[in-house]
Amino acid sequence: MTTRRRSRSARATRRAQRTRPRHDMLPTLVGKLPLCEPMDAEQLHRIDAASMDILQEVGVVFRDPVALQDWQQAGARVEGERVYFDAAHIRELIASIPSEITYHARNPDKNVSVGGRNSIFVPMTGAPYVCDLENKRRLPTLDDLAIFHKLAQMSPAMHSSAHHIVEPMDHVISHRHLRITYSSMKHSDKTFMGMTTSGKNAEDVLDMCAILFGADFLEQHAVVTGNCNGNSPLVWDETMLSAMRAFNRRNQPVLCSPFVLGGANTPSSVPAAVAQLNAEALSALAYTQVVRKGCPAIYGHYLSTVSMQSGAPMAGTPEISLMNFMIGQMARHYNIPWRTSNTLGGSKLFDAQSGYESATTLAAVIHSGAHYIWHSAGWNEAGMHCSMAKFVVDAEQCAAAYRLAEGIKWDDFGDALAAVRDIGPGGHYLGHPHTLAHFENAFFMPKLFDNNSIEQWSAEGSLDTVDRALNQVRKLLDEYVEPTLDPAVDEALRDYIDRREAEIPAMEALNQEY
Amino acid sequence: MTTRRRSRSARATRRAQRTRPRHDMLPTLVGKLPLCEPMDAEQLHRIDAASMDILQEVGVVFRDPVALQDWQQAGARVEGERVYFDAAHIRELIASIPSEITYHARNPDKNVSVGGRNSIFVPMTGAPYVCDLENKRRLPTLDDLAIFHKLAQMSPAMHSSAHHIVEPMDHVISHRHLRITYSSMKHSDKTFMGMTTSGKNAEDVLDMCAILFGADFLEQHAVVTGNCNGNSPLVWDETMLSAMRAFNRRNQPVLCSPFVLGGANTPSSVPAAVAQLNAEALSALAYTQVVRKGCPAIYGHYLSTVSMQSGAPMAGTPEISLMNFMIGQMARHYNIPWRTSNTLGGSKLFDAQSGYESATTLAAVIHSGAHYIWHSAGWNEAGMHCSMAKFVVDAEQCAAAYRLAEGIKWDDFGDALAAVRDIGPGGHYLGHPHTLAHFENAFFMPKLFDNNSIEQWSAEGSLDTVDRALNQVRKLLDEYVEPTLDPAVDEALRDYIDRREAEIPAMEALNQEY
Repeated sequence: MTTRRRSRSARATRRAQRTRPRHDMLPTLVGKLPLCEPMDAEQLHRIDAASMDILQEVGVVFRDPVALQDWQQAGARVEGERVYFDAAHIRELIASIPSEITYHARNPDKNVSVGGRNSIFVPMTGAPYVCDLENKRRLPTLDDLAIFHKLAQMSPAMHSSAHHIVEPMDHVISHRHLRITYSSMKHSDKTFMGMTTSGKNAEDVLDMCAILFGADFLEQHAVVTGNCNGNSPLVWDETMLSAMRAFNRRNQPVLCSPFVLGGANTPSSVPAAVAQLNAEALSALAYTQVVRKGCPAIYGHYLSTVSMQSGAPMAGTPEISLMNFMIGQMARHYNIPWRTSNTLGGSKLFDAQSGYESATTLAAVIHSGAHYIWHSAGWNEAGMHCSMAKFVVDAEQCAAAYRLAEGIKWDDFGDALAAVRDIGPGGHYLGHPHTLAHFENAFFMPKLFDNNSIEQWSAEGSLDTVDRALNQVRKLLDEYVEPTLDPAVDEALRDYIDRREAEIPAMEALNQEY
Repeated sequence: MTTRRRSRSARATRRAQRTRPRHDMLPTLVGKLPLCEPMDAEQLHRIDAASMDILQEVGVVFRDPVALQDWQQAGARVEGERVYFDAAHIRELIASIPSEITYHARNPDKNVSVGGRNSIFVPMTGAPYVCDLENKRRLPTLDDLAIFHKLAQMSPAMHSSAHHIVEPMDHVISHRHLRITYSSMKHSDKTFMGMTTSGKNAEDVLDMCAILFGADFLEQHAVVTGNCNGNSPLVWDETMLSAMRAFNRRNQPVLCSPFVLGGANTPSSVPAAVAQLNAEALSALAYTQVVRKGCPAIYGHYLSTVSMQSGAPMAGTPEISLMNFMIGQMARHYNIPWRTSNTLGGSKLFDAQSGYESATTLAAVIHSGAHYIWHSAGWNEAGMHCSMAKFVVDAEQCAAAYRLAEGIKWDDFGDALAAVRDIGPGGHYLGHPHTLAHFENAFFMPKLFDNNSIEQWSAEGSLDTVDRALNQVRKLLDEYVEPTLDPAVDEALRDYIDRREAEIPAMEALNQEY
């Protein structure tokens, strides 16, 4: 047993460490937990063979003249807009996709990796509504977006500031991608995502990346991620493909994401839906290598299942979990980093449904071994709104899941067993030196969940999860410190935006409230 | 494609099937999903060796003269109340525990099994408060308990009616076990649990089981489950041990459950906490075989981790998930069925926190392969209340998890792939015969979660999860049909209760409100 004096001083130090705000980013998650692999080798090969049959015999539609020409030149059979692929050709093309990607952030301490057992959490994007600091659902502004980028910056388990977490509706749509990109770059020094709303917009994002990182640096390093959704079944369109090419040509990775509404645009069968999705993903992944051999690319997907009673997409269902496990196996088979979606849900409120759906999704994601874990904070109402309250709760739950994925810590096992001998039957461990030295790291303590007695909880105002989370959002915004950005770079970015906004016609904003 | 007439008629049949209330119990869950096993063989043996060292060198306190005498006669070294065990002796004793148990329900169609890949879901028990049909937290009555037994009967994924889901506070405490047992037997024909509040109370439960099943049948078949909590670290007390003996002597299984508050009554180390818990469980499991060799028994535990800031127990933390995975490995190593706790949470409300904690726990439980999945519906506020709303939501989520655990269904894979060829790029599957034939079984649709648009949700009254769940509770209670019980048996049970209530002094109820 340590002396009282020493123990008091150690306790004071620990208390001081606890009270200092800690917003340091967690490093890349290096998973150690074994993954859930529900397919044996024969079943995996059945999926692979079925996908190759689809690619060869059904084909994939590329609604884009450039892509069709590219495929023809690459040696694929093109009939109209439909491209038929030889399995060997697909395998040869995807073989040049790097199995790991290191993302360079403007703060090199915040570089992260995906691939192998390396994973990162990325906030949600694309919400046309916000649930704000008063938990009111409304159209979002550029200031709301800035708040989310600040929260991403301050959430230890968020490895990226993403891009349009909410749509800044107070800005004309044709200029929006510039302001979104600047907000991601300015309010956070983590890696971020790039808009793919058109080929031209993607070029703007990449030009801004060249300003932030240098054009030569960009050529050699991944600094931004784009996303290109497929139109399942088996269609890729011009908007997405032109943005994909813009990213590929600058050697930047894109998520190749078939958009699955299970039962509506796939068969009503989990393995057949995966076989179709796999064919779709492979066709786009192969295309990235036609555009630029060796360019990094990520096996993507968006997964939901559809309620046949209402036609509504559902989240957190067992089939989505199974499909995640299977897609993980396929991506590892092809040795390509892969993306999934996290903490999804369809609730209109941040209520119990929202919690169940989000946690169910998060658990499946961890057991699936996904690398690029997108939509990891804020998603609610099937993506129609991003909730400030939910953002911080999801971010904390991702930090908890990070601990889970790290697996069992054996380093102090011997000391801890010695404590069992010290304490013996009927004692307690609260004052034991091993407990004092290890409890903070041994057991994760969520700050946003209340585990006190009902008496204490009542005395503290009977706050629900939303109340506590919004208090935390306010606290984080008070503590926020903007990361330093070289003033010359900042000015160059602003100049670029000014120039482009003068060049691009200001199309009317979608909504007239702003 | 099928004809319109045929398709319409098939659709009408399906609609009729959907509208008919379906409350059939799901059979025993036979898991097919691979389990999460974070320990390799060497690590598993480190835990086993550490537990055996604890049993040999630290010993376990049995605060019970009968048990101490039993252990002495069995050849263990007894010093005062402390028993020291030889590892070989422990291994020899636990070797006679059956690796599977079939529970016989009074309706044989509802027999279930635990062990191997067989698992069952059992509702929560022991809540001193109820959150009722108006979502009001108050002291529960015997009528409230009956409501929960009816809900357990009507929930397809609940395989048991358990016992005192809530404490019937309107009944004197010394008679309560009789009324609780009768309520379990009367309102449900599923298997149930037996009170272990004392050896005498346990005898009453077993006498009532003998009336329901026949004394000879009882001797040869498991019909009821008791639970005996340990006083961690390393203590078993007389109340629990006397109840355990009562069950063992009648050949009925008991959950041998160390009660872990990680960090408070275990070391602040996941593997060392598991080593201690494992030693505790083994000592009680071995004792069941001293009492009656070959008697079924279940490796139990209650797991929480403690917030070192408040002392409060926490649920859904990553360490609890890891411990579940590890305990699963240990129990499989010893080839003994094991119990875990499901859908736990500390929230005072049925809110987002409650959803996250419950779903996180449920996911860990499924990946751990637990057999006797207790506390699977209703648990909230760290077990201080059982919520009627949460009960039905948890039960539906268990049905979803049941699907997950069943794994991938390959039976219609070929037909589903043929549909991909039929539909081709850019089509949709909604009218395809394969979709019509399979969508209901292909994708789980939770009825209590709302996935409609916000417009439709608003038009339907903007109900939250609690509102929808309580509507469902009311609907179920309207549809409830009491399962037939032989009037002679019913009379014999009532006579037994009358006689025992005359014999047992009516101790004052804990609370004077009733």
